[in-house]
Amino acid sequence: MSITLGSLAARFGCDLSGDPNIAVSRIATLGNASEGSISFLANPAYRHQLGETRASAVILTQETVDDCPVNALVCDDPYVIFARTATLLYPREVPEPGIHPSAVVDPSATVDASAQIGPLVAVGPGAVIGKRVSIRSGSVVGPGCSVGDDSLIYSNVTIEKRVTLGKRAIVHGGVVLGADGFGHKMTEEGWLKVPQVGGVVIGDDVEIGASTSIDCGAIDDTVIEDGVKLDNQIQIAHNCRIGAHTVIASGTGVSGSTSIGSGCVIAGMVGFVGHINICDNVVITGKAVVTKDIRKPGVYSSAFAAEPDREWKRQVARYRRLEKWEQRLKALEEKVKADD
Amino acid sequence: MSITLGSLAARFGCDLSGDPNIAVSRIATLGNASEGSISFLANPAYRHQLGETRASAVILTQETVDDCPVNALVCDDPYVIFARTATLLYPREVPEPGIHPSAVVDPSATVDASAQIGPLVAVGPGAVIGKRVSIRSGSVVGPGCSVGDDSLIYSNVTIEKRVTLGKRAIVHGGVVLGADGFGHKMTEEGWLKVPQVGGVVIGDDVEIGASTSIDCGAIDDTVIEDGVKLDNQIQIAHNCRIGAHTVIASGTGVSGSTSIGSGCVIAGMVGFVGHINICDNVVITGKAVVTKDIRKPGVYSSAFAAEPDREWKRQVARYRRLEKWEQRLKALEEKVKADD
Amino acid sequence: MSITLGSLAARFGCDLSGDPNIAVSRIATLGNASEGSISFLANPAYRHQLGETRASAVILTQETVDDCPVNALVCDDPYVIFARTATLLYPREVPEPGIHPSAVVDPSATVDASAQIGPLVAVGPGAVIGKRVSIRSGSVVGPGCSVGDDSLIYSNVTIEKRVTLGKRAIVHGGVVLGADGFGHKMTEEGWLKVPQVGGVVIGDDVEIGASTSIDCGAIDDTVIEDGVKLDNQIQIAHNCRIGAHTVIASGTGVSGSTSIGSGCVIAGMVGFVGHINICDNVVITGKAVVTKDIRKPGVYSSAFAAEPDREWKRQVARYRRLEKWEQRLKALEEKVKADD
Repeated sequence: MSITLGSLAARFGCDLSGDPNIAVSRIATLGNASEGSISFLANPAYRHQLGETRASAVILTQETVDDCPVNALVCDDPYVIFARTATLLYPREVPEPGIHPSAVVDPSATVDASAQIGPLVAVGPGAVIGKRVSIRSGSVVGPGCSVGDDSLIYSNVTIEKRVTLGKRAIVHGGVVLGADGFGHKMTEEGWLKVPQVGGVVIGDDVEIGASTSIDCGAIDDTVIEDGVKLDNQIQIAHNCRIGAHTVIASGTGVSGSTSIGSGCVIAGMVGFVGHINICDNVVITGKAVVTKDIRKPGVYSSAFAAEPDREWKRQVARYRRLEKWEQRLKALEEKVKADD
Repeated sequence: MSITLGSLAARFGCDLSGDPNIAVSRIATLGNASEGSISFLANPAYRHQLGETRASAVILTQETVDDCPVNALVCDDPYVIFARTATLLYPREVPEPGIHPSAVVDPSATVDASAQIGPLVAVGPGAVIGKRVSIRSGSVVGPGCSVGDDSLIYSNVTIEKRVTLGKRAIVHGGVVLGADGFGHKMTEEGWLKVPQVGGVVIGDDVEIGASTSIDCGAIDDTVIEDGVKLDNQIQIAHNCRIGAHTVIASGTGVSGSTSIGSGCVIAGMVGFVGHINICDNVVITGKAVVTKDIRKPGVYSSAFAAEPDREWKRQVARYRRLEKWEQRLKALEEKVKADD
Repeated sequence: MSITLGSLAARFGCDLSGDPNIAVSRIATLGNASEGSISFLANPAYRHQLGETRASAVILTQETVDDCPVNALVCDDPYVIFARTATLLYPREVPEPGIHPSAVVDPSATVDASAQIGPLVAVGPGAVIGKRVSIRSGSVVGPGCSVGDDSLIYSNVTIEKRVTLGKRAIVHGGVVLGADGFGHKMTEEGWLKVPQVGGVVIGDDVEIGASTSIDCGAIDDTVIEDGVKLDNQIQIAHNCRIGAHTVIASGTGVSGSTSIGSGCVIAGMVGFVGHINICDNVVITGKAVVTKDIRKPGVYSSAFAAEPDREWKRQVARYRRLEKWEQRLKALEEKVKADD
């Protein structure tokens, strides 16, 4: 795939500084670019690399165009134009249809003729695989599960049971969808496993990162709405709902029956307790612990930043002396009052 | 499976309010129930749904029975009776025996005739698969590993080496049992890998959630006792012991050689340092960091709850001023004393 | 494998207390040792087990040799000598060459004749498998990926795309290398997926623990340098660099474009924000949150240790009263000043 700068400028409404007939065929960082590649400058931290770049063109703003030694596409938000350009240059591959002879597809499964079923894939009874779906090596689509049109399931993915995946899903390696929720009730005879009979319903345009797990609902379904983007190693417990277009970064865990609104941005390693509701448009910063409902959009936090261990230990020691300080403060107040 | 309310009441010692001949065949939440389903009311938060439910019957307490518009099973602990009812209505499937032609079973492995080996499963040399075991697609049972009777191994599970799984285990997708413990010793030539030659010994009635990993012991075994329930994405390092009937929620990590007692309840995302001992009947709340032995049953914590970011930042700024405050407090004390 | 104490003493430069002709063939802990095994005493916590040990020999220091009831190898650092002894007694298996008939190897892949490709392994187009590599059951080596000589890839590993693994790698079950980085840009039409076209370049002598994931770079590569040791369930995001010989414990997450120096020791469950630089020889303690560049070697922390929940809650309540205390302290200061 190759495209001229003139054509890119016209398509994305950018000003072009330079030669419209130059073609680019790949993306590159400013520092590693070479002829034929297009780069961008969005983060000021990389501005010092602009002067030396060997890219054929750079996407940047009016502010930096004068420092650019090569052709430039000038726009307001270079990262957006870069992302669109990259999407053009690296189009999603249309899978070559067919079922690899080593794949095991149950006779009762429905696989669209345009779908690609890779080596050593297992597709269970009653499963439904949509149009132009690609399922890579070693993945499993369990009984009755369905995968929507144009979805891409990478390798060694597990889609266990009662899972419905929408259209244009991207599911990365090691993901587990539809394991049992964690439901055990203590009884006189010990822990009793509570049957988990719900499913997992995933909307359209959802991406799920490597080794993320989304459990079946206990009774009703666990629900991931349209456009949700999940990073790697996230845990979504039974009966959660993740609202449309919410993004969650790696390592975050959402406990059972918690509902997160739409348009939220959840950073990495955040923990949500169970049975709470987070409204739309909430931002949670990294490593925070969310323990109760959030009813107001905004940014929420609870992590401490690392500092030299010696200083941190002193701080913690002070923290543990707060009780004594409070007593001393009170004593002082009484003393001063008595002295009056 | 279908059962009458009269039969349920008799079996579980509940009072029945309504028609004993009505049969139920599935469980449902109060809000989504329909004819033929049985629901329950245990969490007061859902009480407002009781009046509108279309369940054929609801399991509830004496306190709420008067508000119930349909048949009711009255008992002291509705969630326990619900769990038992669900267990009746959704019995564990008896696997259809046989080895799928695409599975690869080493000739030296022993697979009970009643076991089910699914598509694309690999069973290594000397492995032993017990009675009525079901192993789903893509799972691997490594050389010499054994799986106890009536165990259910879901898809893409890895049971690598020197792993003994007890009876009635349930192991979810993506689990890795028997990887090497993390043992490296710095030497003059750099990190030296310390051979990990122990195994993993798992008792009866253990459930292991999706993508949890339990490493081999370094020399002796890593031990998971009877009745332990592990949620998803938990890490159990080499030489740990998890005591009988302890439950651990998702995302928790237990560092090497740490021993956790019996009957403990460990919440999600807790971190345990290595080489410590936690006594029986300890509860650790979510995201806590356990750094030393715990010798007394009870509840232990160390997490801060999220608050609006602006307020959190102010709090942290105050926290970092504690040293100055302490000085000011001391100065005041001396001043007041001197003024006396 | 069996070796005499005399031979061990000579090889490792230890003093031998006892019979040089005694042979040992396996390692054991002091408590579980029996005839033919060699044990060690490095951690004083285990000293009480020395007197009762049934090992044929114990590796220990001059300080403890008098308490040893059996043969002893005396040295300065018993754990190093133990690790070297274990490495001798448990040599890395040379894999039996060959491609299992159930494996699917693309005709365009290059597999060295000395390599072992296990059951149900998939090797994609253009992949390159080096000398004496062993790939265990169910693993996937994607198109164009390469695995260096003498590497050991355990079961159900996913090496997805654009991944280059160096020599002598050890990769444990469930690992996912080369999934897309998490790159989405909000636009007027919603989240736009930014194509991730970089790869993953992994040096020599790297070990990667179970279910760890390392994503492809966005444009340039994600880089793991020589001798890095990663524990289980670690997340390395796109464009990270992990410097040579750095070790990272389980559950840690490194956000995109963050660079960690050489010789660092990162404990478990640490979180790094993105786009920061950590210099060489930094130690981060467990559960810390690293939010900015670290330019000075040393130890850095930010976690609180668990304490009884009641006390913790009181502490947190005091923490939340700090604003009022500050006001009270200020009022007192003014009062005392005014009283002067």
